[in-house]
Amino acid sequence: SRSINLAVIPGDGIGQEVVTEGLKVLSAALPQDVKLETKEYDFGARRYHATGEALTDADLDALKQHDAILLGAIGDPSVPSGVLERGFLLKLRFAFDHHVNLRPSKLLPGVATPLAGEPRIDFVVVREGTEGPYTGNGGTIRKGTQHEVATEVSVNTAFGVERVVRDAFARAQARPRKKLALIHKNNVLTFAGHLWTNVFNKVAEEYPEVTTEYMHVDAATIYLVTQPERFDVIVTDNLFGDIITDLAAAVSGGIGVAASGNINPSGEFPSMFEPVHGSAPDIAGQGKADPTATVLSVALLLRHLGYEAEAARIEDAVSADLVERTDGPARGTSEIGDALAVRVAG
Amino acid sequence: SRSINLAVIPGDGIGQEVVTEGLKVLSAALPQDVKLETKEYDFGARRYHATGEALTDADLDALKQHDAILLGAIGDPSVPSGVLERGFLLKLRFAFDHHVNLRPSKLLPGVATPLAGEPRIDFVVVREGTEGPYTGNGGTIRKGTQHEVATEVSVNTAFGVERVVRDAFARAQARPRKKLALIHKNNVLTFAGHLWTNVFNKVAEEYPEVTTEYMHVDAATIYLVTQPERFDVIVTDNLFGDIITDLAAAVSGGIGVAASGNINPSGEFPSMFEPVHGSAPDIAGQGKADPTATVLSVALLLRHLGYEAEAARIEDAVSADLVERTDGPARGTSEIGDALAVRVAG
Ligand SMILES: CC(C)[C@H](C(=O)O)[C@@H](O)C(=O)O
Ligand SMILES: CC(C)[C@H](C(=O)O)[C@@H](O)C(=O)O
Repeated sequence: SRSINLAVIPGDGIGQEVVTEGLKVLSAALPQDVKLETKEYDFGARRYHATGEALTDADLDALKQHDAILLGAIGDPSVPSGVLERGFLLKLRFAFDHHVNLRPSKLLPGVATPLAGEPRIDFVVVREGTEGPYTGNGGTIRKGTQHEVATEVSVNTAFGVERVVRDAFARAQARPRKKLALIHKNNVLTFAGHLWTNVFNKVAEEYPEVTTEYMHVDAATIYLVTQPERFDVIVTDNLFGDIITDLAAAVSGGIGVAASGNINPSGEFPSMFEPVHGSAPDIAGQGKADPTATVLSVALLLRHLGYEAEAARIEDAVSADLVERTDGPARGTSEIGDALAVRVAG
Repeated sequence: SRSINLAVIPGDGIGQEVVTEGLKVLSAALPQDVKLETKEYDFGARRYHATGEALTDADLDALKQHDAILLGAIGDPSVPSGVLERGFLLKLRFAFDHHVNLRPSKLLPGVATPLAGEPRIDFVVVREGTEGPYTGNGGTIRKGTQHEVATEVSVNTAFGVERVVRDAFARAQARPRKKLALIHKNNVLTFAGHLWTNVFNKVAEEYPEVTTEYMHVDAATIYLVTQPERFDVIVTDNLFGDIITDLAAAVSGGIGVAASGNINPSGEFPSMFEPVHGSAPDIAGQGKADPTATVLSVALLLRHLGYEAEAARIEDAVSADLVERTDGPARGTSEIGDALAVRVAG
């Protein structure tokens, strides 16, 4: 019989609330014969304050035993900026080699967008997750003086670029429109830019059916608000991906519905799924947070584990629910989760 | 008697067309007693193909003699990506220490925006122009092999950050709303991020009237489309500034009306003014290009040289013209230039 052994990391702020709903919908979606085991891990600000550690090697060993990880949100104003980001979120992405950071953007019917007109938005960003300016490479000299110099080194390898570019081409090939855009800034960041561009062009030869284009990251932000329908699959560097996926989330319904997967395609390490939004401490504990992005992250998780039909059922349930939200009264976190679970089970 | 000794660089593509209109409006705006001398320089793709050089030391010596520089656009598909950008545009910004890259965003009445509703947009981005990931620092090993490694080094100095942060605070202090946002990614790029944040907070103490906020660059892209009225003055790093000013241009009327100044505040070197748009080779030579961004860049140029009243007259003329464009027939490059010149003179 089949089973899913899931690590659950509620985290900080609204993390606990949205993860509860995500799990509710996950249970409703799973076939009877699939045994779901979950283990909750207490990471985030509380743990950091209590122990001074965000994520230890022993933690990584424990997490490594699971089939996948569901994360709510990490981050709290009581912890200095960068500590949990570098010490937990990025540490986990790097330790588990989550080099495919998958972020779909789909403007669903009934969902408000800040854009005028009724743009059709349905694309997916494949963001590199283990290289670029995110490696922590760099340093500071003469800190705090008038002569301080701080550097940040973006590290890009043919190995790292090629594997994520290949993943993106395979995804583009599998979609009806078969389009792939490389986003970089190769006219200024010429060392990394040439590596990305050359690898991209080389792999493109193996995918003659995929229509490709190159776009500078600055121009891409323009197209994302003026012609978002232009995009199908996007592949890009870690930092550019961070920036454009927030913009993509904003135009396609907001971070309340933006899901993401930090994927290790080989399966050597468990992949991690999380909403794009943060811990929103201002509304934490009030039952106000929208769990939809977490529920959609659960769909990505199921698809990753091979439960395609169940993933699609969750996505359909979310679509149907969003259409009804337009007229209905405002609902709280658990009401939305309940409604989605009912639809998914039904 | 007063005089302006202007270097004019039409450049590639639509550059010549828009610069012609910019100069037309400049002449119309200047008081009788101001003598305008212009010298045209032939830089760009043609020059590069003919000589193999984009910008020589002798060119820099010649340009240095002028009070200011007006540039149309540089860039052509016949030149590999990066060659003219690094060899001309960035070389000039670095050689003339254009550390304040000024990019105002104002949504003028009558101008279309991709955003729904009628957002009030009126802010200015102060982008650092001589540091960050733009220094060309970095390199490649094992080029073209499976083991290639390419690095890009972002270099940030207390000297460079402090001077641009001071410039931004002074601008915020001089505006009615007195708000300044620092945009960075200090939770991931912690070395550079801490330098920027510390310098920003230190200088803030000298400006108690200025309301400050910090925002990650990814979050900033969300606010730019959901709450653009939130911004007054923004100060940011070279690369983040490149990205968010294209987005800012897109939401505030498009790059047809986005002006910029590459400013050397001390006056040791001439400052350069240019539209944010590129050379648009697809519409070059057809009299179709919108010269408005160049005309608004001329206004920035005049303001920089101390001609505040004349700068304001140009901006008023553009505002009045844009309102009328809504209903009027489509006009060509020189018709728009003529109309603006008439308004400015009248
Ligand atoms: C919190 C931060 C480290 C993270 C990132 O920059 O990747 C976040 O912005 C994201 O996009 O997942
Ligand atoms: C052409 C390029 C070098 C330039 C930049 O990146 O600064 C452009 O995008 C700009 O914003 O002026």
